[in-house]
Amino acid sequence: MERHVKDSPSEGQSPVTDPGHPVKCSPVVIDDVSLNGPTLNVLAAEEFIHQSMDIIIEDAVKKASDVREKVCEWHSPEQLKELLDLELRDGGESDSKILQRCKDTIRYSVKTTHPRFFNQLYAGMEPYSMVASFIAEALKPSLYTYEVAPVFTLMEDAVLRKMMKLIGWEEGGEGIFNAGGSMSNMYAVNLARYNHCPDIKELGLSAAPRLVMFTSQECHYSIAKAAALLGIGTKNVYVVPSDNRGKMIPSALEDKIKMAKSEGAAPFMVNATAGTTVLGAFDPIEEIADICEKHNLWLHVDACWGGAALMSKKHRHLLKGIHRADSVAWNPHKMLMACLQCSAFLVRDKTSLLQRCHSNRASYLFQQDKFYDISYDTGDKSLQCSRKPDAFKFWLMWKALGTSQLEQRVDRALAMARYLAQEIKKRKGFRLLMEPEYANVCFWYIPPSLRNLPDGPELYQKLHTVAPVVKERMMKTGSMMVGYQPHGDKANFFRMIIISPQVSRQDMDFVLDEIHNLGKDL
Amino acid sequence: MERHVKDSPSEGQSPVTDPGHPVKCSPVVIDDVSLNGPTLNVLAAEEFIHQSMDIIIEDAVKKASDVREKVCEWHSPEQLKELLDLELRDGGESDSKILQRCKDTIRYSVKTTHPRFFNQLYAGMEPYSMVASFIAEALKPSLYTYEVAPVFTLMEDAVLRKMMKLIGWEEGGEGIFNAGGSMSNMYAVNLARYNHCPDIKELGLSAAPRLVMFTSQECHYSIAKAAALLGIGTKNVYVVPSDNRGKMIPSALEDKIKMAKSEGAAPFMVNATAGTTVLGAFDPIEEIADICEKHNLWLHVDACWGGAALMSKKHRHLLKGIHRADSVAWNPHKMLMACLQCSAFLVRDKTSLLQRCHSNRASYLFQQDKFYDISYDTGDKSLQCSRKPDAFKFWLMWKALGTSQLEQRVDRALAMARYLAQEIKKRKGFRLLMEPEYANVCFWYIPPSLRNLPDGPELYQKLHTVAPVVKERMMKTGSMMVGYQPHGDKANFFRMIIISPQVSRQDMDFVLDEIHNLGKDL
Repeated sequence: MERHVKDSPSEGQSPVTDPGHPVKCSPVVIDDVSLNGPTLNVLAAEEFIHQSMDIIIEDAVKKASDVREKVCEWHSPEQLKELLDLELRDGGESDSKILQRCKDTIRYSVKTTHPRFFNQLYAGMEPYSMVASFIAEALKPSLYTYEVAPVFTLMEDAVLRKMMKLIGWEEGGEGIFNAGGSMSNMYAVNLARYNHCPDIKELGLSAAPRLVMFTSQECHYSIAKAAALLGIGTKNVYVVPSDNRGKMIPSALEDKIKMAKSEGAAPFMVNATAGTTVLGAFDPIEEIADICEKHNLWLHVDACWGGAALMSKKHRHLLKGIHRADSVAWNPHKMLMACLQCSAFLVRDKTSLLQRCHSNRASYLFQQDKFYDISYDTGDKSLQCSRKPDAFKFWLMWKALGTSQLEQRVDRALAMARYLAQEIKKRKGFRLLMEPEYANVCFWYIPPSLRNLPDGPELYQKLHTVAPVVKERMMKTGSMMVGYQPHGDKANFFRMIIISPQVSRQDMDFVLDEIHNLGKDL
Repeated sequence: MERHVKDSPSEGQSPVTDPGHPVKCSPVVIDDVSLNGPTLNVLAAEEFIHQSMDIIIEDAVKKASDVREKVCEWHSPEQLKELLDLELRDGGESDSKILQRCKDTIRYSVKTTHPRFFNQLYAGMEPYSMVASFIAEALKPSLYTYEVAPVFTLMEDAVLRKMMKLIGWEEGGEGIFNAGGSMSNMYAVNLARYNHCPDIKELGLSAAPRLVMFTSQECHYSIAKAAALLGIGTKNVYVVPSDNRGKMIPSALEDKIKMAKSEGAAPFMVNATAGTTVLGAFDPIEEIADICEKHNLWLHVDACWGGAALMSKKHRHLLKGIHRADSVAWNPHKMLMACLQCSAFLVRDKTSLLQRCHSNRASYLFQQDKFYDISYDTGDKSLQCSRKPDAFKFWLMWKALGTSQLEQRVDRALAMARYLAQEIKKRKGFRLLMEPEYANVCFWYIPPSLRNLPDGPELYQKLHTVAPVVKERMMKTGSMMVGYQPHGDKANFFRMIIISPQVSRQDMDFVLDEIHNLGKDL
């Protein structure tokens, strides 16, 4: 089995036999390289691929998502470097050695599909989406043109249309899948700017007035990153205060807009967040849309996290007014469990704004004399050149589950968050930051030694050091992963994120028990 | 087997049995949702995953890369929509139906791993890299923090270091893998600008002088896209003429720099291309570096395509002087055959410029009170938030093949291009644009009816319509895929790209025979 996948030696020796390549020609050697016959025959790699697939299914799928196994096996960077032998050398390694490396890679990786991984805004194993991602990886399509990616181009379009329907854009619009929600937010800022002043694409900002955009203090950090990248400047992102639930205060937004205008600056867009990263708060889109209309500002809704609620009749009220947005970012790889990455950017415009804003008409890709309808070539709408078929990972699972089961999942995750919040309120030593609005449950754990302290700065100063220690112990035990962070004036607290149908109330109980076990001596 | 992967009903009925979740608690129902026990048990999906893996190996790996099979089965968008039934509905579908959808998706997709796919700057099947990508998809890591992606964080570092060695940065530097070469070029422009004037990150460009950057007329279109996105403006990309081989003319660069200065603009960077998209030309980096030093400009080398030559002792002279670059973009997913996407952006700086330029210090991810060395948290260097472990797809194949076999592949691809060029010169009815410098072979096919026309505008006007028709017939036959394009004042010509060790001289002969067969009546 060893070395059968490797290229056969190219000098002198006979090439790989391949029924499609009858080797009857006289040998051709150029630059000392023999060119007769392929030196890599993929059919010969079948055994290696089968063996690695067995490892993937056993270790990376079944074991990784088994609640009885650890979420992670912690090692410091220094230890892990020793364990892995990362150096790349002149000589290659045998297939058996490579299979062992696959096993080790899986073993020492964090199991984000484990039912007790609650650390990020994504989690869980989705078998249909995973299979779709395997197909995509094997086929290696790139979505610049219909010619190279016919199936995936059409699937992307079908998924985008369905998502736009859920947003409430009855007359359509357009969109594009891209490499993450941060990218979607960058698209939004670029599009809003282009809409405000198309000349900037050619002339740049040096002759333009100072552009100003608005977002809440709770928004995702990619809004500021976009402002920095796009040459707008982070100081020209005017931060609008949020209320104590983390929602943007509309009157404060209007104040900021007036302030910007009085300074002679040019306001051009508002970012509303539907599902903030830490608190899971939803900005009041309806009121914000009124203000945007009044001041003629582009309204972008960052619904990367909260967009999933649109699937639910029970919860879609959280995004009331989203149909009035000019653009929406929505990541099915978060709450909806499509494989990473699966991020859609959607635009209500129907005048090819996306294309006009981003196009560069590369003649080697977007030939105008093609024999099919070139409106199916989506690549010129994109900031990327090669682009993965991420929509397929959502399409296949949506086909399998139907909208109804996606809805059930969202409803169940939000019910689970409510259950956890109830339990936190019942238990001594746990304190809820606020009632959850979505699937984020934020709380402090108060070890027995601090329970008699009065509510005040001293308590929170001490609590600030509790979460990091509990987190360290959690990682070293490998029993679960829950994130913590400080936030505004709030001392370090835990943020539980509930997503996956692999999770039950028993896991919620486990999390609280385990935090207590890990931290009770602090 | 049907429906076993679906979530079990959540209301009333008993949950999925799972040995890790002993269901002894009293039932809890919140918002009409039963929360006892998981409703999705991944272990139950094993059969479905096994069956889809069989389909993937048979259809998407073996058949897709078998030279006796078609490269594509052409259908117009309208026909394909009929064949695929893309609509997403309320109800889900059975597993057997989903497996059929997997088969159809593969069947109607273009086989970019087929030995006769020569249409883009990537091609071929690389089993080790494919297996790595499957592992990555199953594990769903995201590279913001060491905590969540310990193994992949270290692998990325190891791969970047090795690539920097090949570039010749003896003292290191840093880098980041990202979602494609266009993104890498955007990173470069942003970094060059930050280096020129760090205040722009906060203040934006509205108060800045007009920034100007330089690139050749043959560069990739992402340079202009970056200028548009970053607020520099496409008109502030000064296009430097290239010679008749497609290489930037250094004296013309210097003229453009002087011109910009005389206009009162602020030049800040030069993009040199190592391996242009169409012609495969290499800009003279050494001379360009001299000019950049003299004028204190950031030198970025877009080696997305040509970087692979650094692997080859025979061909690395093409990039002579690259060690003097301030930044380099290099896509192992092109010539080196790592699975899509695998794109590195590398920076010579050792003062954390990348981090300072892009950081936003999100408190929920990049906590400063972690228990491990947070210099391993790479996410704050990135424009993306969630980021895939693309370096692993290169690391695993590099381990398996060793540098020596990667070198052999590059040498063989370039020798194959020379062979093809020789054959073109020998054959009646084929005309080479120029001797290939790299793996791009550009040529016209002249059907018998045009062979007696004198070299002149009439011939090229007629030739311009030949390639699109041959391409249409090629797609409808499914025998191979070769790109064509017009370029500057050149009429439509074919561009063959040679990469994969699955390809032999017989395939080169086939391509020329087939083009003649498809176009001889024109």
